[in-house]
Amino acid sequence: MKFCSSCGNSITQKIPIGDNRLRYVCDKCGEIHYQNPRVIAGILPTYNNKIMLCKRSIQPREGYWTLPAGFLENGESTLEGALRECFEESLAKVINPALYAIFDIPQINQVYMFYRAELETPEYGPTSESSEVALFDEAEIPWSQLAFPMVEVALDHYLEDRKTGHFNIIREDIRRPWKSRHNPS
Amino acid sequence: MKFCSSCGNSITQKIPIGDNRLRYVCDKCGEIHYQNPRVIAGILPTYNNKIMLCKRSIQPREGYWTLPAGFLENGESTLEGALRECFEESLAKVINPALYAIFDIPQINQVYMFYRAELETPEYGPTSESSEVALFDEAEIPWSQLAFPMVEVALDHYLEDRKTGHFNIIREDIRRPWKSRHNPS
Repeated sequence: MKFCSSCGNSITQKIPIGDNRLRYVCDKCGEIHYQNPRVIAGILPTYNNKIMLCKRSIQPREGYWTLPAGFLENGESTLEGALRECFEESLAKVINPALYAIFDIPQINQVYMFYRAELETPEYGPTSESSEVALFDEAEIPWSQLAFPMVEVALDHYLEDRKTGHFNIIREDIRRPWKSRHNPS
Repeated sequence: MKFCSSCGNSITQKIPIGDNRLRYVCDKCGEIHYQNPRVIAGILPTYNNKIMLCKRSIQPREGYWTLPAGFLENGESTLEGALRECFEESLAKVINPALYAIFDIPQINQVYMFYRAELETPEYGPTSESSEVALFDEAEIPWSQLAFPMVEVALDHYLEDRKTGHFNIIREDIRRPWKSRHNPS
């Protein structure tokens, strides 16, 4: 950030009066341009005993498998965003969504909100964001080919909770260095 | 938003290729300036059977009572943000935090995340953001003087759950027009 988005003048990082953090402040009009974490909303989609994953066709982590999720947009709820992202990435429509996992990833200024949900029918397919979409049995999950730590953490919790049928809502920090339970570091 | 924060040139609202929403796009360097909802992290602080509220000394809703909460900052988790905001607004330090309520307020592009937590000792006081901080018994809660709908919704859930001792995590949309359960509209 180099210029004020309101008046176009130059910007300096300084601590405003009454604040205790460096902010981007306009040298002319004085506007403070705050920067805040973003919310990523997503779905953990299941069909019978299988879990749906999407193979990313875009950076970052192109070619790796992920749960459908993306940046929450202005004007939508986290559930609406999660359902939209699921459809945009996989063409899948899901039912019975229930909030399941919240991951704080402070090092990259992100808060993930995942809902569990079910595919009514196994209808899905590739999209501009996913080169492949597929259902996986537990034994088939490509642990070494997952795109992000949060995918592994969400799947681990889900597979564990599925044994008992009790899906308590999870809230966890995911911080680097992060240690995979499935892949040697 | 009128100017590109990267290069200082003019900005036009348009739908970028591969997108389906109006974005602020720089006419010169082409940078897309996304705008996304913000996270507000807060605490529902209790001490014995009382609930701590803060009387706002700043706009909006100056003079009305609220739960301590504020915008999540880059680099912190929702729990860290909630504890920081609680201290900044009330000087209270709390223990045993547990995620309790998530409110989507899509009309103002906000996602609230509240943790229940306990004051170890009844130590708190006014701050630059709160003209008064106080503990309330259920019968003393100033329902007609609450700052925001989310405060009423959170308190209602808490008082109901307290009867049973089961505090399941709540996720709700708060949309306008919103109807108070305590105040005639």
